Order: sequence, then C-alpha cells, then structure tokens
Amino acid sequence: MIDPSKTYLIVGLGLLGGKYALELTRAGVRVLAIDTNQESLDWALAHGYIAAGARENFEEMISQADHIVFGLYPTALEQWVGQYGKYFRPGLIFTDVSGVKKGLVEPIQAILPPEVEFIPSHPMAGKEVSGVENSARVEFSGANFIITPTQKNTPRGIEWCRSLAQTLGFARITCLSLEEHDAMIGYVSQLCHAIAVSLMCASDNTRLAEYTGDSFRDLTRIAKINEKMWAELFLWNKENLIAEIDQFDTALQEMKQALLTGDREHLEEMFRLSTRRRTAFDQH
Amino acid sequence: MIDPSKTYLIVGLGLLGGKYALELTRAGVRVLAIDTNQESLDWALAHGYIAAGARENFEEMISQADHIVFGLYPTALEQWVGQYGKYFRPGLIFTDVSGVKKGLVEPIQAILPPEVEFIPSHPMAGKEVSGVENSARVEFSGANFIITPTQKNTPRGIEWCRSLAQTLGFARITCLSLEEHDAMIGYVSQLCHAIAVSLMCASDNTRLAEYTGDSFRDLTRIAKINEKMWAELFLWNKENLIAEIDQFDTALQEMKQALLTGDREHLEEMFRLSTRRRTAFDQH
Repeated sequence: MIDPSKTYLIVGLGLLGGKYALELTRAGVRVLAIDTNQESLDWALAHGYIAAGARENFEEMISQADHIVFGLYPTALEQWVGQYGKYFRPGLIFTDVSGVKKGLVEPIQAILPPEVEFIPSHPMAGKEVSGVENSARVEFSGANFIITPTQKNTPRGIEWCRSLAQTLGFARITCLSLEEHDAMIGYVSQLCHAIAVSLMCASDNTRLAEYTGDSFRDLTRIAKINEKMWAELFLWNKENLIAEIDQFDTALQEMKQALLTGDREHLEEMFRLSTRRRTAFDQH
Repeated sequence: MIDPSKTYLIVGLGLLGGKYALELTRAGVRVLAIDTNQESLDWALAHGYIAAGARENFEEMISQADHIVFGLYPTALEQWVGQYGKYFRPGLIFTDVSGVKKGLVEPIQAILPPEVEFIPSHPMAGKEVSGVENSARVEFSGANFIITPTQKNTPRGIEWCRSLAQTLGFARITCLSLEEHDAMIGYVSQLCHAIAVSLMCASDNTRLAEYTGDSFRDLTRIAKINEKMWAELFLWNKENLIAEIDQFDTALQEMKQALLTGDREHLEEMFRLSTRRRTAFDQH
C-alpha cells in the first residue's frame, strides 16, 4: 500500500482521474487536482474527493506533488509535460492512465530530468459515461492494472506503481513491455470497438431491434463511444490496429469464400475452431 | 390458446422440439414424437414430455397428427416431407422452427396436397447447448416468435400458429414475409455470428484472455456454435449473408482508410454515428 504522508496531484479530473482521487482520499492521502473545468473541481471539492483544486496558476501546486497521476488524453498529456514539466519537484514519480503506450511514453521519458520518473500504467476499467460525477460508478475490483516499465524505470518506481494499484483495489496487476501492451490492446479492445462501430455504421437497421436476440445487442454494446477519446487511442496505436483489422478481415473473407463456393466442410471447420478457442478462453 | 383436444406430433426431438413438447404437454395436449435417437425418445417419455415416441414404423403415428411441429434442420426437413408427406392426414396444419425460410418454404408448400397447410414460423430462442435433456432451460418468455406466411397460407393457418406461440409463452408474435425474415436474420443473427467466429479464427490469442475487459468477451460469446446447424443456416441464406458481410466490410475498410490517412475527423464522425444509432436501438 502507498505511503499516506505523500501528496498526490491528479491532472485531468475526469472519470478515471476522479476515481483515483476518491480512492486515494479514502486511503488517507492528501489529494490535489488540476483541471480545465472549474465545475469538475468544485464538484470534487464539495464531495470530498480532493483537498484543493486549481484551473490556473497551479505552478506551486505542481511542485508540492510527490506523485502525479495524469488522467489526460495522450496528446494533451504530451503537451502538458512539455509545458509544465519544469515545475516537477526532484524525486517526483508519476504515472498516467493512457490506453496506448509506445508512441507516448518514449518521447516523454526522453525529456524528463534524471531525478524525475515516469512509470506508465493502464487501468483497464472504464464506463460508457464520463466526468468526475460518474467516477464512483467505476469498478476497479474486478479489473486488470497493467504496468509498462521501460529501461528508464527503476525498481522503486515500479514498486510505487504496484502499491498504487493495490491501494486502488485492482484485482490483478501485471507488467508488460510497451510493445506487448499496445499489441494486446489493439486486439482485445480496439479491434473489438472497430468491429462494433463498423457494424453500427454499415446500415441503418436499428428498426430491426425489435426482432433481435442477444447476439446483435452483445456485439454492439460497445459501439456507444466517446469519439474524442477513441479517435486518440485508435490513431496513437494505428499500426497495431490496422494489422489486427487485416488479420480479422482475412478470416471474414475466408468465410465469405466458403459461402460463395458452398464449402460446407470448411465452414464447419471454422465453427469448430472458434468453438474450441472460445471454450479455452472461458477456462482462463 | 390452442385446442387441447388435438393431437400434436413433434418431428425432431432436440432442444427446441423438446421445449415445444414440454409446453404442449403442460397445456394438456396429447404429444407424440418422432426422432432418430431412441435415447431422446426414452428420456422424453420418462420425463413426461411426450405420450409416445417412435424412431421407425411411424406412418400410423403421422396420420394421427392434427398438427406437426418440425424441429429438424432445413435439409432434413425438406427430405422428410418429401418422403413421408403422403401419410399426412387431410386438414393437417404444420409448422417448423427453422432459422431460414425462403429457399425452404416455397419448395415444400409447392408439393403439399391442397388440404394440408404449412405455416412457417421461427421461434427466436436458443441456447448454447443442444438435446432434449436441455429443453427446459430454453426461455420463451422474453423471446420473439415470427410467423412468415405466404400466399398459400390461410387466415386459419396463421391463427393456429399464433395461438401455438401464445401457448408456448412467447413475449412477442410478429408476421414477416419470407424475404423480410431472411434479410433480418442475415443481419441481426448470422452476420453477428460470422463476425464472432471470424474474430476467434483470426488468431490464436486466447492467452490474451487474462488481460481482456468485457469487450472481447461480449463480442465472442456467440462464437461457441453448433457447427452442423450453423453451416445449414449460413448456406441456406447465403445471398443475404454475403450481402451483409460486404456491407459490413465496406464500413470496416472505411475505418481502416481513416486510420491510414490519419483522418481524425472522419473517425470521430463514424463514432458519433455509431453512438447515435446504438442509443436509438436501446430506446426500442
């Protein structure tokens, strides 16, 4: 568990930033916050999520922080560190919540002074809502927390990040390389969202809702999407995502070909393979 | 509700045939059954689902039936009616449970004598299991029942089919043309299964299960599939399904193109469209 005598700063008090603030405050830590939206700060202050907040003139607040958690989108995070990194106190260890890593982490780590450490991590939890007001609805207890250390990270930094995840209540804490993380995310999350969105965009068949069983509902549940955030995530990881789309499309075209030629045996073979893999997946 | 003085025959005592037998017996009807599997018949008899069953020498049993429900796959149904249709009693009204209609219904209706009526229907309910022993686990109460009458059907036949669905406890009973039904099924059910199966076949990434959130789990739940039945359904409806695959693939390629060119605005537009449609869908 984390040291409660340290001061934490949340930069970007949205859904996840808010949840971190709430859990850290509950753990007895002093939590400060910076956000561009005064209402979010006021709400968090009124509900006891933070001890203080600022939307401007926050240089002094930055330098008080022993630890920072960035709840910003990748593009904003990169800009913010470039602009305000000079106020980081020596010894600062900070992390983020970004769903993409490689293209983001390396440039930021490259510009940090040696006495400041960025240990990247990704809490794999979210909601189809946003904003600090909805933070309490986010559940960490069944979720994965992934730490993605690089050669620039120290055992102390990794250990701090792990203790943060424990304090936040994550079920499972794992380390992956930046490349492994981004490839995994391209497959289990982004490809699924690309498919669900494409299925909804393919035709305006929502009137068919009245006939549908659970299949269509299950496949498109994640098609309700925060467009700004997901455009960020997709574009920052586009090489992996495009490769996954191509691989998926190859399998789909193989099925179409079996339909065109009436190749029943090949269809059945694909169905057996998918059944076997999905069954193995359930046993994990 | 149906007339309990009539005799019902179930041909094909699997998951759905068994559920029909169970519900009809509960409604006080005399239910007979024909199946190729003696164990299924024995089980159903022992559990009070049917009054009698036969796997051979069932010509007399056929001619006793006022109504037949076919729980067979399309290919088997077509063959069975060709072979045993001569034993149908005059005045017989029968239905099926098939998930595809057009290519199946028209040839069968064409060969029936004028005093026998085939009113096709599709109970949109199932389970990821099969066999009469699992019948009781099928839930009709939240499901759709679709009747697909043609010009060969009579108001009396349609009315009987509707009362059957009411007796079985379906939440919602609708009429569609054969074409409307098959196009709808190609979209809301078959395309979704084609996508889920392709996603599982695309790569052996089941080891990634430990990292996945709910997206991958939701999208691939239906990838566990009865390969014989689904090869039947896909091939009998392949024109519709191929058209749906093409339409879906066009949207997916549009997204890939936006990724390749870094067209953030176009990505966001697709995300907004999918969000809007999925929200409308939820309001149905």
